[in-house]
Amino acid sequence: MKLGACYYPEHWPEDMWADDARRMADAGLSRVRIGEFAWSRIEPEPGVFDWGWLDRAINTLHAAGLEIILGTPTATPPKWLADQMPDMFAVDVHGRSRGFGSRRHYCFSHLGYRAEAARITRAVAQRYGNHPAVVMWQTDNEYGCHDTTISYSDAARDAFRFWLAQRYGDIGSLNTAWGNVFWSMEYRGFDQIELPNLTVTEANPAHWLAFRRFSSDQVISFDKAQIDILRELSPNRDVMHNAMGFVTDYDHHDLGQQLDVVMWDSYPLGFLEMFPFSDADKAAYVRQGHPDIAAFHHDLYRGCAADGRWGVIEQQPGPVNWARHNPAPLPGMVRLWTLEAMAHGAELVSYFRWRQAPFAQEQMHAGLLRPDSQAAPGLDEAIQAASDIADLGEAGRPIKEVALIFSYDAEWITQTQPQGEGLSALWAAFSIYTALREAGLNVDIIPPRADLSGYAMVAVPCLPAVPDQLVSALKAFDGSVIIGPRSGSKTDELSIPAGLAPGKLKALFPATVTRSESLRPGTHHAGDGWSATRWLDHLETEAEAELVAEDGMVACWKSANVRYCAAWPEGALIAEIARRAATEAGLEPVTLPTGVRVRKTDTYIFAFNYGNETQQVTLRGIERLGSSALSAAGVAVFEAS
Amino acid sequence: MKLGACYYPEHWPEDMWADDARRMADAGLSRVRIGEFAWSRIEPEPGVFDWGWLDRAINTLHAAGLEIILGTPTATPPKWLADQMPDMFAVDVHGRSRGFGSRRHYCFSHLGYRAEAARITRAVAQRYGNHPAVVMWQTDNEYGCHDTTISYSDAARDAFRFWLAQRYGDIGSLNTAWGNVFWSMEYRGFDQIELPNLTVTEANPAHWLAFRRFSSDQVISFDKAQIDILRELSPNRDVMHNAMGFVTDYDHHDLGQQLDVVMWDSYPLGFLEMFPFSDADKAAYVRQGHPDIAAFHHDLYRGCAADGRWGVIEQQPGPVNWARHNPAPLPGMVRLWTLEAMAHGAELVSYFRWRQAPFAQEQMHAGLLRPDSQAAPGLDEAIQAASDIADLGEAGRPIKEVALIFSYDAEWITQTQPQGEGLSALWAAFSIYTALREAGLNVDIIPPRADLSGYAMVAVPCLPAVPDQLVSALKAFDGSVIIGPRSGSKTDELSIPAGLAPGKLKALFPATVTRSESLRPGTHHAGDGWSATRWLDHLETEAEAELVAEDGMVACWKSANVRYCAAWPEGALIAEIARRAATEAGLEPVTLPTGVRVRKTDTYIFAFNYGNETQQVTLRGIERLGSSALSAAGVAVFEAS
Amino acid sequence: MKLGACYYPEHWPEDMWADDARRMADAGLSRVRIGEFAWSRIEPEPGVFDWGWLDRAINTLHAAGLEIILGTPTATPPKWLADQMPDMFAVDVHGRSRGFGSRRHYCFSHLGYRAEAARITRAVAQRYGNHPAVVMWQTDNEYGCHDTTISYSDAARDAFRFWLAQRYGDIGSLNTAWGNVFWSMEYRGFDQIELPNLTVTEANPAHWLAFRRFSSDQVISFDKAQIDILRELSPNRDVMHNAMGFVTDYDHHDLGQQLDVVMWDSYPLGFLEMFPFSDADKAAYVRQGHPDIAAFHHDLYRGCAADGRWGVIEQQPGPVNWARHNPAPLPGMVRLWTLEAMAHGAELVSYFRWRQAPFAQEQMHAGLLRPDSQAAPGLDEAIQAASDIADLGEAGRPIKEVALIFSYDAEWITQTQPQGEGLSALWAAFSIYTALREAGLNVDIIPPRADLSGYAMVAVPCLPAVPDQLVSALKAFDGSVIIGPRSGSKTDELSIPAGLAPGKLKALFPATVTRSESLRPGTHHAGDGWSATRWLDHLETEAEAELVAEDGMVACWKSANVRYCAAWPEGALIAEIARRAATEAGLEPVTLPTGVRVRKTDTYIFAFNYGNETQQVTLRGIERLGSSALSAAGVAVFEAS
Ligand SMILES: [Zn+2]
Ligand SMILES: [Zn+2]
Ligand SMILES: [Zn+2]
Repeated sequence: MKLGACYYPEHWPEDMWADDARRMADAGLSRVRIGEFAWSRIEPEPGVFDWGWLDRAINTLHAAGLEIILGTPTATPPKWLADQMPDMFAVDVHGRSRGFGSRRHYCFSHLGYRAEAARITRAVAQRYGNHPAVVMWQTDNEYGCHDTTISYSDAARDAFRFWLAQRYGDIGSLNTAWGNVFWSMEYRGFDQIELPNLTVTEANPAHWLAFRRFSSDQVISFDKAQIDILRELSPNRDVMHNAMGFVTDYDHHDLGQQLDVVMWDSYPLGFLEMFPFSDADKAAYVRQGHPDIAAFHHDLYRGCAADGRWGVIEQQPGPVNWARHNPAPLPGMVRLWTLEAMAHGAELVSYFRWRQAPFAQEQMHAGLLRPDSQAAPGLDEAIQAASDIADLGEAGRPIKEVALIFSYDAEWITQTQPQGEGLSALWAAFSIYTALREAGLNVDIIPPRADLSGYAMVAVPCLPAVPDQLVSALKAFDGSVIIGPRSGSKTDELSIPAGLAPGKLKALFPATVTRSESLRPGTHHAGDGWSATRWLDHLETEAEAELVAEDGMVACWKSANVRYCAAWPEGALIAEIARRAATEAGLEPVTLPTGVRVRKTDTYIFAFNYGNETQQVTLRGIERLGSSALSAAGVAVFEAS
Repeated sequence: MKLGACYYPEHWPEDMWADDARRMADAGLSRVRIGEFAWSRIEPEPGVFDWGWLDRAINTLHAAGLEIILGTPTATPPKWLADQMPDMFAVDVHGRSRGFGSRRHYCFSHLGYRAEAARITRAVAQRYGNHPAVVMWQTDNEYGCHDTTISYSDAARDAFRFWLAQRYGDIGSLNTAWGNVFWSMEYRGFDQIELPNLTVTEANPAHWLAFRRFSSDQVISFDKAQIDILRELSPNRDVMHNAMGFVTDYDHHDLGQQLDVVMWDSYPLGFLEMFPFSDADKAAYVRQGHPDIAAFHHDLYRGCAADGRWGVIEQQPGPVNWARHNPAPLPGMVRLWTLEAMAHGAELVSYFRWRQAPFAQEQMHAGLLRPDSQAAPGLDEAIQAASDIADLGEAGRPIKEVALIFSYDAEWITQTQPQGEGLSALWAAFSIYTALREAGLNVDIIPPRADLSGYAMVAVPCLPAVPDQLVSALKAFDGSVIIGPRSGSKTDELSIPAGLAPGKLKALFPATVTRSESLRPGTHHAGDGWSATRWLDHLETEAEAELVAEDGMVACWKSANVRYCAAWPEGALIAEIARRAATEAGLEPVTLPTGVRVRKTDTYIFAFNYGNETQQVTLRGIERLGSSALSAAGVAVFEAS
Repeated sequence: MKLGACYYPEHWPEDMWADDARRMADAGLSRVRIGEFAWSRIEPEPGVFDWGWLDRAINTLHAAGLEIILGTPTATPPKWLADQMPDMFAVDVHGRSRGFGSRRHYCFSHLGYRAEAARITRAVAQRYGNHPAVVMWQTDNEYGCHDTTISYSDAARDAFRFWLAQRYGDIGSLNTAWGNVFWSMEYRGFDQIELPNLTVTEANPAHWLAFRRFSSDQVISFDKAQIDILRELSPNRDVMHNAMGFVTDYDHHDLGQQLDVVMWDSYPLGFLEMFPFSDADKAAYVRQGHPDIAAFHHDLYRGCAADGRWGVIEQQPGPVNWARHNPAPLPGMVRLWTLEAMAHGAELVSYFRWRQAPFAQEQMHAGLLRPDSQAAPGLDEAIQAASDIADLGEAGRPIKEVALIFSYDAEWITQTQPQGEGLSALWAAFSIYTALREAGLNVDIIPPRADLSGYAMVAVPCLPAVPDQLVSALKAFDGSVIIGPRSGSKTDELSIPAGLAPGKLKALFPATVTRSESLRPGTHHAGDGWSATRWLDHLETEAEAELVAEDGMVACWKSANVRYCAAWPEGALIAEIARRAATEAGLEPVTLPTGVRVRKTDTYIFAFNYGNETQQVTLRGIERLGSSALSAAGVAVFEAS
């Protein structure tokens, strides 16, 4: 695995560049990402390009032996461009145009901006497409960040109507598919359809779902235009994009299919603070992040990549600036995060950023260097990680154990119609992922269309609309299967299937969900050490009632190799189900100490301690790095025996 | 009492209609409501009507012996109509036009839409006004639902100015009435008056109150236009409207005076979740709803009806789709709710809906049938209720015990100027209602103008502006009277009366409120088993200090037959006051077991257990239905002895 | 110290005026503020003035011996004026124009309204500038109240561009100063710059800070225009403005420099409820307000006044109307508040309002009289206070002990970039102020440019950008110094200084802050009786680690006479640091009983009990008023020995 850094030569005096490059190389970094926010320096006036500084920056980095990942600067169009087309901004859900002054200030549906984005991409690619230092391209930056996938602009409305006409052909088909007879919502032409925001009460969920799918497709096609230009003008270089954490507004599986590599931006402490983890977890892991945040995304984005190539292009090296509260990582965490990425098969971990900028929005975001160019605590950990990696060599091929099925479409369906506040397919997946990982199992998070061969166990946390291909694959699968609530409960147009839930999954698990409930937090059905909470599915089935609450509520049904978890898959309930399923699948679930996680390849077993106390881990294999007395933020690597 | 269902033939293949009709009749249902959302099917293009399907639907239902309640479809104008008049939408408090895509997307003040609503009402009434199956009309659907009474549109502003000119005659009178000299808010003409939203700090409360009254009047006149057409074209049929729960934005007493029957839509579980009940109540009654939600509205809407005719046109039969959390009712609750309506004198309970729709917004809203046409749990309970009703015959005439005075105007005044967050006349009324009902008393909720004869006791929970008629009636009344805080504290123009509060009520209770406070939750004055909380009135009076807190705060004053509750009327305080007043009035307050409620007619005593445990009830009378060991969700009926 | 009242003759029949005036004088009041909301009565039609009523009102008050403070009515322009220039309203952060119907409905940058404000000020000053009864002017009313300093209007945008051009000269300087190279935010001209609201993610903090400074300057220049007219037309009268509590949106130090007297509006109970005090404090002090609310503002606004002249122009006399909850003050509090102002050196305490108005927005706001003209509880306390003041004579000259440095600019910087939710320079200052006052110390809150001579101790709670003048003054200061976290951490353009924090303060305290963190509430580093919380600064320094947490976190560093508090300065931590610093400075910190506060002059020691229990205070000096057994809301005054 390579290490790298994100660097902004335009932020620093030119006479600092060579020394920066040297220090990067000395620290064991071999790749450097640049350029993704530099449009106003590349093209300071319309049509007037200033390549000189960037030529020199690239050559300086190249001279130090660094490989360059070059970004297209389309996330930050300059003010002069925005002034040329004031309707290029996205419009928010309240109908307000968003403005200039930060970044990502464009609507994916604006044709004028699409042309400009293609123009600047072509210009940069023409200049540097064959430069020997340039080994990879990044398209744009963090699609979807700051709620930028979905726009309620006129441009979006017009494009949505066109997209609908393409999808449904005639308006009657759309009316039928959406059930528009309900509440007299029938349209007489595609040009009558509005965006689903600002309605009196909720819009038709089918309307929302179509709009979510359209909005995702706009991101994918915007990205594809850049990829096509880059492949034309910069042959034999990889193209990647940097996804964010917990962003689900566009379909990363779709994006991954058109990229060479999927990368992501890993900020475990910021994500812990900003996403709905429990207060207990937020307190316990304040300086580490929840132990599964990084791993979940590693396993998710690896599953998004066409050929499994992935990496971390932005790794948190210290406190960030953007969360409600911004603590520093526990000493050791920067190294731990780096090696956890290695254990999951990353090809690169690149730290964001090389040096903390003293100005503008991110001035309180740490770098490997402090603003005064002294080493920040993260730098030593990066150097240590480089040494560890050199010591370990290749991470080894992953052991396949559990496939966890996740789809972005499922997340949009459950966000559109959660039935119970705060519940969705993503968080069902995260919750099951945690249970599996606490049992020491390797998990691959894969799309419904992925191949299930080689796995001992499959979990489908929540997949309301089930593709036929998955049904076939699951029927052919003879390992253990866990199906979570709401799976199979919807058609592809977000209606209830003819024979009720679990719809197509009846082929696998013969049952009918006669009623679905959602419960407020605190209400539960108590079982033997577990509780059924939040989402309940009531089944008519010949299956065995495997876990039954004291009041008779069945929390888990079992039919042959398939278990149906009939409540929100959390805590002791899903842990018990996962443990039973894994054992039957021939896996060996363990009980890891609190905060400890492992990841297994054919070469190594990696162990990581996200907790605040030293923990003793007992794993088969010879100690290769660290020891089985795993200190807080500690890493141990054992040779697989 | 009759039973019925809400049915949408336009949602289902025509070949299912006859079987649906037969099954309804078999289940003991005799009435079916249809048509209220079908505008786009009745008039698919402007001026082009398609009556065929509706003719056949009505005839099919008729053939099965069902009586039809037909709705005017004005809550769901089609898209082609909205496109003709894009300014017909209501505008929200933030100044944003609301859009097409759900329902109730019109502003009550838009003259163009008023004309269209009259046109379609006339068309439907002409077609079916004399059809033998049609026994009742419903105007529109759920006025005020989804915050649709109040609109900040230009149409509303223009109509408001006209309304003000009618009310005040000259602008000087308005300036004086509102006290516009304050902060130089004086107007020089009615055309200078704006709507009270988006001001810098709060607008004049008198301005708000006038706007609230105007907004209510717009609903009433909109409704009246439909009633006039229906009475003209469909003689000898009843006209009703379906009110929602806890909607107070328009004056239901006014509405009731122009209807033949007042009906309402009873969703106890959704209301429990969405309204400010305590967390403890939300946990205890998650599957039952608070024990007083349905009864409160029964007693309230009965008091709204000109001749006391009322019913439940939409009864929750299982989980709904629209609350934050949507649990299923406890087994037995659908029957319990039905019989509780009977006990309060309903003429109809109609379940919403016959069959769960598999598409669009309400696809997760249960029906009596599942989407696959199998019986949902609610159907069996409806059948049981039909059998119970047949068994019991007439419910009997209600026993008059306590009159509780509520006015919508009072609610608007207290919402406009709550002085203490979250407090209002409605919740004062609900709180006293609960105390009375926990004491086993029959309560009628009536407007200030209603006749008090026959009652042993009157409660005025919170009536800031007191009509002269009520003062006279109370002076003539020799039973027990309870007056709650803030009563009499305002003039009709929301100012402080010349002699201070309780204003006109001084005729009844000689006192002066020298100071009114509001306290944050948690602050209280502790008494002997009770506390004075939230709203405090300090009185100068010769009355007896009946309940005095340890620190000297007087929570209840007594003068002759009148008690003044000088704090927020909740919990043990109002229970104690109610008990004393009732005992003096010759009523016999009891202490019902937790969760148990009763309702008494001259024929029967009904007992209902909303709790989670079996309770023993000891009531005079012979067991006629059920037993005095009342299980959770159980009903017992005793013959009045 | 004089006493007074705020009076609105235009609200009352003319035949009540003389009696009101007589009763004021009888109560011991000598000053009366009038006129500040009377524009629509002074100029009912454009250009048509009605002076008669105001002439008579002034003469009536004068005849009773009262001195008049006359307000310019510019906070309440009439509707006819707003209709002439509909773009005069401020625009809120969401882009919505605010409207007519309350007060303060103007944008400070609107040139048309500025001309109108000057015109009416000139008219009033011409009429009454030389009237013998008029002794003081008030400009406008409560600048900034109801969030009215900052406007996002087109007028504001245009004025901001002009202001920026004045400040930066050329656009390149602005780009460099703000670091606009970051995210390609570079501008090519001042006319490209937008306001910082409605951006996609946060705007550049330097952009925000400039806009905050500009917005403050607009208030100052708006006010200056009135002052110039008043000084021209009303020679030898004082000009003051009435500031609100906890309003920091404009720079009160700047305002104070152009006024003769700074006054403020003291509503301790409303402020307690509406500002982020702990729930425990809100419960403990529900009827008193937090013990430091009034004193903090007394000491702050005294420091704003050019010559130290200040007063309370609006003193809460009973419950207010505008907080979420509005309790009554504990008996005695109105007197206590009055004498606390005296102890801090006020020249006037004026009660708001003379008589409670029965109409419009503030009808639930108590006065000294009830709406029925009877005495409200506050009147007796005012009379008692007048007697106490007469008894005591002059308050005496204040003892200088601790100087606390606060700047509005610091507050804007920390609001712009809090790094940790809810933390800011203001609340750091309030927290340290409380610790000092609990130790019985006199505190002056002064701007960074103020003279430090005479103080034994200086506290700099949080001053990110440090003026050179303060650095010099602190270097020359040989008493104890406390520096709070984030001090010196920013340049004047909100970037990180070249050598990192504490920037210029390194001259005083040799250290480098290598890392700054913010922690969520509940996370802490436990020390010996104290905790390090919320904001943490990590230092490289040769200084002594004076307070070290169990885990090694250093919470307080000490170097010579300077202490650096490296965590949020709250609770036991800052109390311990303050105590150590004070003792070293030769002050004698005490431990006052809970809720008790003192203030010392060269003549008296005043003691106030804000608690709910009687407390024994042991102070040197002879009892002059009250006794050392200090009852709840009690005041005692001792002659300084
Ligand atoms: Zn990033
Ligand atoms: Zn309904
Ligand atoms: Zn004020």
